[in-house]
Amino acid sequence: MDLSSFLTSLTTSFVIFVVLMLLFACLSARPGNNVVYYPNRILKGLDPEESGSGIRNPFSWISEALSSTEKDVIAMSGIDTAVYFEFLRTVLGILVLSGIILLPVLLPVAITDNGAMFNSNTTVSTGTFNELDRLSMANITVKSPRLWAFLIATYWASFVSLYLLWKSYKHVSCLRSEALRSPEVKPEQFAVVVRDIPPLPEGQTRKEQVDSYFRTIYPETYYRSMIVTDNKEVNKIWEELEGYKKKLARAEAVYEASKTPSKPQGTRPTNKTGFLGLVGEKVDTIGHCNEKINELAAKLESEQKVTLKEKQQNAALVFFTDRVAAASAAQCLHAQMVDTWTVFDAPEPRQLIWSNLHIKFFGRELRQYVVYIIVALTIFFYMIPITFISAFTTLKNLMKYLPFIKPLARITVLKTVLEAYLPQIALLVFLAILPKLLLFMSKLEGIPTESHAVRAASGKYFYFTVLNVFIGVTVGGTLFSTFKTIQKNPNQIVSLLAQKLPGNATFFLTFVALKFFVGYGLELSRIVPLIIYHLKRKFLCKTEAELKEAWFPGDLGYGTRVPADMLIVTIVLCYSVIAPLIIPFGVLYFGLGWLILRNQALKVYVPSYESYGRMWPHINNRILASLILFQLTMVGYFGVQKFVYAPLLIPIPISSILFGFVCAKKFYPAFQHPALEVAAPSLKDHPNLEQIFRSFIPPSLSSDKVDDDHFEDALSQVSRSTSLV
Amino acid sequence: MDLSSFLTSLTTSFVIFVVLMLLFACLSARPGNNVVYYPNRILKGLDPEESGSGIRNPFSWISEALSSTEKDVIAMSGIDTAVYFEFLRTVLGILVLSGIILLPVLLPVAITDNGAMFNSNTTVSTGTFNELDRLSMANITVKSPRLWAFLIATYWASFVSLYLLWKSYKHVSCLRSEALRSPEVKPEQFAVVVRDIPPLPEGQTRKEQVDSYFRTIYPETYYRSMIVTDNKEVNKIWEELEGYKKKLARAEAVYEASKTPSKPQGTRPTNKTGFLGLVGEKVDTIGHCNEKINELAAKLESEQKVTLKEKQQNAALVFFTDRVAAASAAQCLHAQMVDTWTVFDAPEPRQLIWSNLHIKFFGRELRQYVVYIIVALTIFFYMIPITFISAFTTLKNLMKYLPFIKPLARITVLKTVLEAYLPQIALLVFLAILPKLLLFMSKLEGIPTESHAVRAASGKYFYFTVLNVFIGVTVGGTLFSTFKTIQKNPNQIVSLLAQKLPGNATFFLTFVALKFFVGYGLELSRIVPLIIYHLKRKFLCKTEAELKEAWFPGDLGYGTRVPADMLIVTIVLCYSVIAPLIIPFGVLYFGLGWLILRNQALKVYVPSYESYGRMWPHINNRILASLILFQLTMVGYFGVQKFVYAPLLIPIPISSILFGFVCAKKFYPAFQHPALEVAAPSLKDHPNLEQIFRSFIPPSLSSDKVDDDHFEDALSQVSRSTSLV
Repeated sequence: MDLSSFLTSLTTSFVIFVVLMLLFACLSARPGNNVVYYPNRILKGLDPEESGSGIRNPFSWISEALSSTEKDVIAMSGIDTAVYFEFLRTVLGILVLSGIILLPVLLPVAITDNGAMFNSNTTVSTGTFNELDRLSMANITVKSPRLWAFLIATYWASFVSLYLLWKSYKHVSCLRSEALRSPEVKPEQFAVVVRDIPPLPEGQTRKEQVDSYFRTIYPETYYRSMIVTDNKEVNKIWEELEGYKKKLARAEAVYEASKTPSKPQGTRPTNKTGFLGLVGEKVDTIGHCNEKINELAAKLESEQKVTLKEKQQNAALVFFTDRVAAASAAQCLHAQMVDTWTVFDAPEPRQLIWSNLHIKFFGRELRQYVVYIIVALTIFFYMIPITFISAFTTLKNLMKYLPFIKPLARITVLKTVLEAYLPQIALLVFLAILPKLLLFMSKLEGIPTESHAVRAASGKYFYFTVLNVFIGVTVGGTLFSTFKTIQKNPNQIVSLLAQKLPGNATFFLTFVALKFFVGYGLELSRIVPLIIYHLKRKFLCKTEAELKEAWFPGDLGYGTRVPADMLIVTIVLCYSVIAPLIIPFGVLYFGLGWLILRNQALKVYVPSYESYGRMWPHINNRILASLILFQLTMVGYFGVQKFVYAPLLIPIPISSILFGFVCAKKFYPAFQHPALEVAAPSLKDHPNLEQIFRSFIPPSLSSDKVDDDHFEDALSQVSRSTSLV
Repeated sequence: MDLSSFLTSLTTSFVIFVVLMLLFACLSARPGNNVVYYPNRILKGLDPEESGSGIRNPFSWISEALSSTEKDVIAMSGIDTAVYFEFLRTVLGILVLSGIILLPVLLPVAITDNGAMFNSNTTVSTGTFNELDRLSMANITVKSPRLWAFLIATYWASFVSLYLLWKSYKHVSCLRSEALRSPEVKPEQFAVVVRDIPPLPEGQTRKEQVDSYFRTIYPETYYRSMIVTDNKEVNKIWEELEGYKKKLARAEAVYEASKTPSKPQGTRPTNKTGFLGLVGEKVDTIGHCNEKINELAAKLESEQKVTLKEKQQNAALVFFTDRVAAASAAQCLHAQMVDTWTVFDAPEPRQLIWSNLHIKFFGRELRQYVVYIIVALTIFFYMIPITFISAFTTLKNLMKYLPFIKPLARITVLKTVLEAYLPQIALLVFLAILPKLLLFMSKLEGIPTESHAVRAASGKYFYFTVLNVFIGVTVGGTLFSTFKTIQKNPNQIVSLLAQKLPGNATFFLTFVALKFFVGYGLELSRIVPLIIYHLKRKFLCKTEAELKEAWFPGDLGYGTRVPADMLIVTIVLCYSVIAPLIIPFGVLYFGLGWLILRNQALKVYVPSYESYGRMWPHINNRILASLILFQLTMVGYFGVQKFVYAPLLIPIPISSILFGFVCAKKFYPAFQHPALEVAAPSLKDHPNLEQIFRSFIPPSLSSDKVDDDHFEDALSQVSRSTSLV
């Protein structure tokens, strides 16, 4: 890619961004779009706009985002979101602090040399060398003393990264501890999940078994237990019931709407009972739904009874009367045989994946390794379908198979743009499919909580992007073919990477620019959700509930957002010294990201769970992994440049590894388990244990009619309600 | 070594064994030797011999040892000893069960082949090939289908090992759980050691800091705390005081003894106060000692006060009112910053290494790695100092530096012997010092308990013996030179080992025989302790206390005994299929060992600590490591034999590794921490918490005069003695 093509791509991206910004300014000012641009505030019962009355300033969101504090973010969106901003802030800090030194020092050093002419054959394939590369390390004569500047720059960037990572880890640890320490009553702080309960002894119910076991160990603080049941059947019936309830509401709304003054009795909606409502007997919808609802309600009740009685599994939720007891129980070894009575601290009720709780100890281990192997295979051989698709989606091919774009392709500007973007777009589309698959596979591992599954999926996605996109694109060709090359000499990987890096600098500059201009532009303007919402509102939604469903924004999408950002971190870090020009792009990416997502977090997204910052250790380790990749690449690249002092770089990857080790020792355990000192402070209110207990009953099992004696089989009785002073 | 030389060595060893057995039969029958042969029974207040009255049968010890149960061992010598016997029993079981199949099958298969003639050049250096080797795999023609028998034998030996290891781990886990579950009050079950207490906040004493921290978390179950102090000074004074007390007792005994009828007033003993009592002023010993004792007692008291007030460190012992609270506190994370307020379950008071408790979290980590590096260097390069020392300790040099041995060296016989043995003696001295050195280094790591330090030292010793003795002897030359060879092709190590193994079979047969005949003969007859005791009794001991010190037997010596046995396990396992003749020797070693040590454990040794079987996971892992070494060697050896089905062996090392993994998951955590269910059963008596607390006060700090208000600075007050219902 030459300079003009790069500038075209950059300009196009910028123009798209400006258009999207203007669109946002217009669209968000219309009160009818409030539910798309301010859903989080609306759901929290707040006025859509902070300023309240007065004419809206189309750019006020910027000052609002800038003036918002971490406390605001926590209040509106929880600790997890605050941790995500801490991540953005840390990376931004690293890039800004590195850039302040690297840009003014390295660019002049690089541009005043002319080494590229002499060593272009050895380090950079001549075809790709262009004006931009004159600003990079590729332009330095081999063995030149100018390389000292780059060596010191590597030290500076590493030092800044480690320093800021340390500060952030400390800060996040404090955030977590403060949140857990809060005097608010949180149900999950009183409960513990027990798995791998041994087989029932003769003549005992599961409930008695669990109760007697825990009451012996915790005579003072044990409250009661809830046996985990196999809810597959009951969930199915419940969902069907809910479906009919919605249908009924919709039919009633349609019926109401049909009562025009001209036709006051209205038209009763009808539907067919067969496949997709297209075939079968035609019935009156309202009557049919009512009938079905009554039928299903009875069925649900009897199924609930059967489930609670007969579908009990070898897992349970155990409730304690105080937080310290639960926090302590969650991290203690209970049984001499460690694969029985395993415990972990309960997550929020909405996070618990009930269907995974019954999987046995070694079953989980086994599943984990099987999934790891499958993911590793996916990571290694994913390039096969990608290569196939990219070969297919060249402009020529597209014109051949999709003749209707031919006239478009004749416009020269459009053609340039399409040719510039098509490979990138193919890659982006592919990356979009993967996260769901990885989340599904993570759940297959037997992970018991939603947030944990998201973290696991996000980790897998990170390895995928870094290995395939970054290393794959850099080294050229697939990982698989790279590995075939490397197999002969495993030490070659670093020097191979180092040799290929400078040649791809421009590609990644474009990639980052596309990501932030177009990606964040779309993010802020919410064009797609807006269109979908308006379409749904116009043609589909009949009831309030349906409307709400149509604009409900979902959460920030941790699982994909973090690995995507992490790919940028890896790219920018790895190029920071080799081609420092990438640093401003990185700063723009994370700066814009911070600003736009701050707005989105405060006003749009609704978090779907709260894990109190458990994501941070993963983020920290992955930034560190990127940093170490950068450092190793630099060691290799200095070797390629035949710089005799290259071994002076060896202490930095070592100290990065040591840093990771110290972090894991000092901070990590407090993210695995709640520290007791954090659970000890007293609560604001006396906890309502019954309510805490009830909050964990899944919706399909709870019902107005269901009372305690209904639950007697799976849920133990309050034994000493008088003792709960 | 040829057959006749082998038989000579075997016979000699056997004769020595018989002589030692007879000596034991004679000597142990004399009541005057009871304190050497039955000290454990005497110290437990039992009659030296089980049978009580009647004439002693010189071989009754055998039937007594055979009829003793595990319960007897636990009662007389504790869980740790029982675990050691479980180790012997397991290995014995593995060898017997393997031998039953391997010996009758493999020996005929080997002896009827004559492959050695054809392939002696390739696999065995011709010089060492002899009649015994005809019974080994070295005698099999390459590629022969007879190798199937050896392959199946490898499977059988591996299966038997894993099966018995599994059973034993389960059994030991039960032993540990029963011991911890026992309703006896054990002080260590009520205490927790806290390290890394953060710096004192303004205006608080250490005691207040600890008390307020733990009282917040455990309002119900916290009892009190004991701050760890720097006892170096006070220990020194206390030891000096104890020394003078002993001296006084001795002088008084001497004075009493000098009062003969002819000289009724006796002679008051005198001594000189200077260096070693050889120079200086001559004083009356009794008077001098009394003076010193009074002086030191006053000094001790004031030093105790200073220590308790001013030498407090950042560690403490924390006591709880019940076992579950202590067990739970010992395994919970207390602080958000994991390098502060770290806890572990208190060991027995006698095991606590006070001087290591103040070392900080990362200081411990650092020390650990430094020690590991030093030990690794010692293991790899130990031959360098030895070679240096042997070079120095030639007879010539000795005569030069130690002129007084010149006349001795003139005797020809002595000269020959000295010249032949000096290098070996240097090696033996080094090997004798090594365990102490390793224990010292393990304590340098900052390990806080005696038993843990012994385990760590024992692990290091295991690696030393297996790597240096086994691999060193097999491959020939030192590890260092081997590594230089292997460096060029790391895959070679297994095949190198496999090639060299058969040639050394006879050497190891002799080694094992020597070990069990002479080693266990000396063990049972206790010749050395007997002689030392009688010499001391005659010439040195004047008081009862001194006499008791002279015969006090010490403990079983876990730290060196286990690695030494493990070396035999490694040798026998690795040769079990290659040269099955070694199996009977192994069976004899562990059979005799079991029998003789059973006697010693029941009657002689006094355990110096009790760790409730924490040694087992280490033993299990090391047997497993030996097994995997065996399996890998076999894979290599089948390769050397050009057996095309050799890859069929690959599943067995993999399943062994899996086995280790499953064990570590299923059993190990319960050895790290007490499981709560084990601590939950109620106690026989109501625990006397004050007594439990006092049992942890080190002797140098306790005194009759020292009462609670003396301790007020370092030891917190009982706060709610009324609440301990």
